[in-house]
Amino acid sequence: MTLGRLHVLTDYHFQQRFSHAELARLAIDGGADLIQFRQKAGMVRHKLIQAADTAEVCREKNVTLLIDDHIDLAMATDAAGVHLGQTDFPVDAARRLLGEDAVIGATATTTSQAVRAEEEGANYIGFGPVFTTRSKKDPAKVKGVRGLEEVCKAVSIPVIAIAGITPARVAPVMEAGAYGVAVMTGVTTKEDPEAATRDYRKALDLVLT
Amino acid sequence: MTLGRLHVLTDYHFQQRFSHAELARLAIDGGADLIQFRQKAGMVRHKLIQAADTAEVCREKNVTLLIDDHIDLAMATDAAGVHLGQTDFPVDAARRLLGEDAVIGATATTTSQAVRAEEEGANYIGFGPVFTTRSKKDPAKVKGVRGLEEVCKAVSIPVIAIAGITPARVAPVMEAGAYGVAVMTGVTTKEDPEAATRDYRKALDLVLT
Repeated sequence: MTLGRLHVLTDYHFQQRFSHAELARLAIDGGADLIQFRQKAGMVRHKLIQAADTAEVCREKNVTLLIDDHIDLAMATDAAGVHLGQTDFPVDAARRLLGEDAVIGATATTTSQAVRAEEEGANYIGFGPVFTTRSKKDPAKVKGVRGLEEVCKAVSIPVIAIAGITPARVAPVMEAGAYGVAVMTGVTTKEDPEAATRDYRKALDLVLT
Repeated sequence: MTLGRLHVLTDYHFQQRFSHAELARLAIDGGADLIQFRQKAGMVRHKLIQAADTAEVCREKNVTLLIDDHIDLAMATDAAGVHLGQTDFPVDAARRLLGEDAVIGATATTTSQAVRAEEEGANYIGFGPVFTTRSKKDPAKVKGVRGLEEVCKAVSIPVIAIAGITPARVAPVMEAGAYGVAVMTGVTTKEDPEAATRDYRKALDLVLT
C-alpha cells in the first residue's frame, strides 16, 4: 500500500459551492494524493450517488479514495477503503468485511487509541486534534505537536495529522514524525480550493525532498 | 426463501424497557417468524453490538433476521438480509453487495415504487402505511386495504403490510392479498410484548389455517 501524504476530505457541510466530486477534482489538481469522501448527514441514497461520482473522479485521476464511516458505501463504490472514527465500525470488524487489501484508517485522539487501532489492523492512524479546529462540534482536547510526536513513537504504522493543519504547520507536524496531513476546511472553504491544496502540497514537498 | 409472515421490528426509540435482543426473544417466543433490527439513530459502534446480540438470539431460535437500512451491519452480523427504505441503498446496489441468497425487502408507499422494487430484485415489498401510525414523523398518505389490494395485484413477490396493523386488522389485510404483516410499536410498547405478539400470531393463524 502506498498511502497518500496529503489527504483532502470532501465536505458539503461547511460549503455548498462545490459537490464532493468537484472538490475531489480540484484537490487532486492541486496535489492531493488521497481523497476521503466525508458526508455525515443525509440520506444513504444521496450519499451513494455523491460517493460514486467522487469515485469516478479518483479513478480517472488514479488517486486513492477512502470513504468516511460507511463500509457499505466503500464496497458499493469500489473505494480503496474506509476511514473510521471511534464510534464507527471497529477496525477488526471492518477488516473482516473489506478484506486484507483494503486501506483502513482509524481516528485516534489518544496514544492508547492509536496503539489499539494498530493492534486491530489499521493501516494508518489519523491522529488529532493536533491544533484547534472548528470543523467538529465536540473536539477532543488539542494534543499539539508534542502529543503527535508521542503517538508517532508509539505505533509503527503511518500517522496522519488531523485538525487545524495550515500550510505553515506542515513542517513542524512532519518533523514530529507524521507521515502526512489531512485537511478539510483548510481546502474546501477557501476561495480557491485547488490553490489552497497546492499550498499544502508545496509545504509537504519542501519537507519530503 | 421462506419469508416470515409475522415480522416484528425491534425498537429502542419508543421504548427503552427492553434491549433489541430482549425484544427479539419476546417476539419470537410470542410467535414472530422474522425479526427486523431497526435502529435509526446513534453510533454505528453501538448499533453493531446491539445487532450482534439480536443476531445471536435469532440464530439460537432459528428465526430469520433482517437489518433495517444498514448493509454493513447485516454483513457483519451475518443476518439473512436487509430491509431498505426509499432513501436507503437502492435494491440492485444492495443485491450486488449481499449476493443472490440474501433477503432484500423494500418499503413502498405507492404501487409504482413496489413495481420498481420488484424489477430491481427485491424479495418482498413492505407496503404502507396501510393504516395511520405514530411511529413515523412524516408518514406518507394512508393507503388503506384498497391500496394494499392494488399493490398485491401489481407485483408477484410477497407483500408485507406495514403501519397501524392491529390484531383485528390482520384478517382484512390478509384477505386483501398480503403475505404477512410487520409490527413495531404494536408489540414493543405493549405491557407484555410476548403476549402482544401472540395476539398477532393467533390472528394470522386463524387466516392461514
